[in-house]
Amino acid sequence: MPTVTAYAATSATEPLVKTTIERREVGAKDVLIEIKYSGICHSDIHTVRGEWGDIQYPQVVGHEIVGFVTEVGSDVTLHNVGDRVGVGCMVNSCRECENCLAGMQNYCLKGNTGTYASVDLDGTITQGGYSTHVVVVEDFVLKVPESIPFEKAAPLLCAGITTYSPLAHWNAGPGKKVAVVGMGGLGHMAVKIAHAMGADVTVLSQSLSKQEDGLRLGADHYYATSDPATFEALGNSFDLMINTVSAPVDLQSYLSLLRLDGTMVNVGAPAQPLPVSVFGLMANRRSFAASGIGSIGETQEMLDFCAEHGIAPETELVAADYINEAYERVLASDVRYRFVIDVATMA
Amino acid sequence: MPTVTAYAATSATEPLVKTTIERREVGAKDVLIEIKYSGICHSDIHTVRGEWGDIQYPQVVGHEIVGFVTEVGSDVTLHNVGDRVGVGCMVNSCRECENCLAGMQNYCLKGNTGTYASVDLDGTITQGGYSTHVVVVEDFVLKVPESIPFEKAAPLLCAGITTYSPLAHWNAGPGKKVAVVGMGGLGHMAVKIAHAMGADVTVLSQSLSKQEDGLRLGADHYYATSDPATFEALGNSFDLMINTVSAPVDLQSYLSLLRLDGTMVNVGAPAQPLPVSVFGLMANRRSFAASGIGSIGETQEMLDFCAEHGIAPETELVAADYINEAYERVLASDVRYRFVIDVATMA
Repeated sequence: MPTVTAYAATSATEPLVKTTIERREVGAKDVLIEIKYSGICHSDIHTVRGEWGDIQYPQVVGHEIVGFVTEVGSDVTLHNVGDRVGVGCMVNSCRECENCLAGMQNYCLKGNTGTYASVDLDGTITQGGYSTHVVVVEDFVLKVPESIPFEKAAPLLCAGITTYSPLAHWNAGPGKKVAVVGMGGLGHMAVKIAHAMGADVTVLSQSLSKQEDGLRLGADHYYATSDPATFEALGNSFDLMINTVSAPVDLQSYLSLLRLDGTMVNVGAPAQPLPVSVFGLMANRRSFAASGIGSIGETQEMLDFCAEHGIAPETELVAADYINEAYERVLASDVRYRFVIDVATMA
Repeated sequence: MPTVTAYAATSATEPLVKTTIERREVGAKDVLIEIKYSGICHSDIHTVRGEWGDIQYPQVVGHEIVGFVTEVGSDVTLHNVGDRVGVGCMVNSCRECENCLAGMQNYCLKGNTGTYASVDLDGTITQGGYSTHVVVVEDFVLKVPESIPFEKAAPLLCAGITTYSPLAHWNAGPGKKVAVVGMGGLGHMAVKIAHAMGADVTVLSQSLSKQEDGLRLGADHYYATSDPATFEALGNSFDLMINTVSAPVDLQSYLSLLRLDGTMVNVGAPAQPLPVSVFGLMANRRSFAASGIGSIGETQEMLDFCAEHGIAPETELVAADYINEAYERVLASDVRYRFVIDVATMA
């Protein structure tokens, strides 16, 4: 089994440390990827700190991964050595349930295999992308188009697809008014993608501190949700709202901003159930929905879409030994808009 | 102003009594309808008892109305004297808002004018269908096809359209699995309509007491929600669920029955917000929505659909002096499935 360098959490409370882990042998359908860049997602922090449930340690996280294929198994047909590839939030699924058979592996009814902290088919715990190499079954590996700057591509694999999928599914496009709630890692990608799809884009952020960025990245309008006048001004306005905020919000106020047949889609999930007023939904035949990442097919579609439209995340490239400091800055919303680890610094 | 006979509530606590009320003069765009049958809806009871807010008394309720046109205003073009017509839950709307302009008067942003207990354009309070006559502006009057038995047609104007509209909007039809929650006035209509649309129909009722009826009316499957095994057996099953139950339900259990991209639509509205688990929605990209009656266009479409498919509600015809007893039986769920007042007994 190949031994590779990684940054791992050893407990819920200690900083991540440099270590080595074992990757599985490259199987017949596997590809070995030499990781070049790995994004830092808020989910990584929730996971290593045990906030989403107890996990085993040591645990390597990271599910925004790009790199080059350096070895392929004997039965691999989709990728070749040297290919520029990516891996997102999942590395396998049951392949048998109704949703997998429909190509919607992200909604695998048995639960897809997460890129980290998930039980792999061989019973081991999956280890993520803060590492020099990873072995992944070929059909969960994406092609990263050449025109996307490699050091910016990684966050597309989570932040990109998580926002692209609901925008595409709920038909964001010309003539549609789309609101993006929250202007962070996910929100700023939602703005870029919705704008590229041709929608009229409004950012609803807690304050106006990122307004200039929002407008530069493609938003047509920018409002502060801390100002009650925002909710009065925008009643019955939006066809689609993408809520990227995981913290509980006052749903009634947000839902009141939907016009007839509008949908608010959560891509973040608060731990506690949110109270929903049925009268509020009924007023405009509104829907409240949630969406989780995207299928492998949609993820490839998103990467191709971003290449075509020249879209990439706003990133801050950091060295591996900066991960723990980066975590603190993510928690303080002090990043514009995604940290990416330069894996070369792990050597 | 024509004086007509009616049954009115005089307070929130006293029985309805026979009385007379004034109808407005027939205006240029109005039709005068001689009411033949008037359905009893649970909403009527909530309204007269002040459970949905304080109202003025005396108040005549009833928003499931059928009868004959006996007079038309000078500018009326849609109806003629002698026409077989119906009036549902609304008698006007602002005609100016985005939704009215889109022909969706039921979602009028200023609030449509309810058939009763609503403020009419002239400032008077609208009085409903437990009465011998009503004056309604012509474009809120529907044509009732000859083939629908008149003494059964009235409930279509509320129970029919309230279930038809979401079934049509969310594409119930061949290949779709539809669950109807609750087997009452609305639920039994949802079963008949969904079946006629070609969907595979499952009733989810508290007990199996109405199972024979449900299967006879068009359901393919019938389950008791009081049995926890129901929720285990039906996980990830339905494309669409129509929840006709106004009382709060455990949403998480019901939402877990939706398959990928399924939607649960409330047509009843509990007074209190319902807690919704975002994780539960995210599992299958589920939506939670609500729908309120239907537009005038949809209501005509529904009446024509019911005529074409030979659909009519199951009704119990009662005399006007039975209204108060009927109310008690509605509250006890002791009606299969809708009371209709024979207005001839008001003479």
